[in-house]
Amino acid sequence: MARTGRRPGQTETREHILSAARQQFGERGYDGTTIRAIAADAGVNPALVHHFFGTKDRVFLAALNLPIDPGRVVATLLDGPREQTAQRLLRMFLELWREPDSRASFLALMRSVATNERAAVMMRQFIERVMLARISEALGVPRLALTAMVSHVMGIAMVRFIVGVEPIASAGEDELVALVAPVLQHYLS
Amino acid sequence: MARTGRRPGQTETREHILSAARQQFGERGYDGTTIRAIAADAGVNPALVHHFFGTKDRVFLAALNLPIDPGRVVATLLDGPREQTAQRLLRMFLELWREPDSRASFLALMRSVATNERAAVMMRQFIERVMLARISEALGVPRLALTAMVSHVMGIAMVRFIVGVEPIASAGEDELVALVAPVLQHYLS
Repeated sequence: MARTGRRPGQTETREHILSAARQQFGERGYDGTTIRAIAADAGVNPALVHHFFGTKDRVFLAALNLPIDPGRVVATLLDGPREQTAQRLLRMFLELWREPDSRASFLALMRSVATNERAAVMMRQFIERVMLARISEALGVPRLALTAMVSHVMGIAMVRFIVGVEPIASAGEDELVALVAPVLQHYLS
Repeated sequence: MARTGRRPGQTETREHILSAARQQFGERGYDGTTIRAIAADAGVNPALVHHFFGTKDRVFLAALNLPIDPGRVVATLLDGPREQTAQRLLRMFLELWREPDSRASFLALMRSVATNERAAVMMRQFIERVMLARISEALGVPRLALTAMVSHVMGIAMVRFIVGVEPIASAGEDELVALVAPVLQHYLS
């Protein structure tokens, strides 16, 4: 991030607002979340949320930054043996979901996308233009296969965390990787 | 259905209300849908919705009946060569999603489950106690593998219809089956 001359207190406040935003979008989805509610959750004045982010759209996009860093995803996919690519991808997501704040952020995204067409459009454009374009080129894998692989990871998040179906909801990470990664890997060959 | 002495007009009205309910739950999710809005969409008095179904929960359950008939799923999985089980499952869902009314019903379910804890609990219990119990026993496949397979199918619905990511959003059914069914089948062996 470029230096803006902000004092540390402002950076903390910004992060505090983002954390509240992830919580609110995660629980209520995009439509159900208001800047007022985010401000209340963060214990700040709504004007401060507007000051840092402007619109609800921008709070949303800022709140989304954490779980999907395109650079990190591409690096994770490329950095290691080709035959373990799916395993690295799955482990990356499992680590992301392990940490409460990044899991909340990820689930916020899924809930918002599921119920709000604008959020779905934002997500669709982000996946198609940023993620798939870079990964498909880097791995030399057709987009359809990549999208199918992504859909499986999204489905696991949904069944494990949102619907909470056993035994996948409480399965260990190693157990999940052992079962799912070899299946995912078929999309990359 | 048992005979209740209802005249044909009432059956039609009931179906009309259910169709409106699927539309509303699909667009707005469980929390965002009201009996009043369902009644308005169906062009009937809200009291009539209460008369047929009682609570919003019961309208929801009735609206869910269409896309997930446990008997049909089990029959589809068992009726044919074992090595084509995943293909039959996937084709069954693709056919379900092809028809606008049943697709709306299915997406209503996903959206409601993603944003409403009560809907998630209903869905979780239904999947665990009805679907997985019957299918795991019938196929002799561990529940974890079955749940992983289901998660992939759910993920495809999400990416194809809800997020609408290309090229999976407009891929042909045969193309999807050729790509995904062999991958899904790994969970059954």
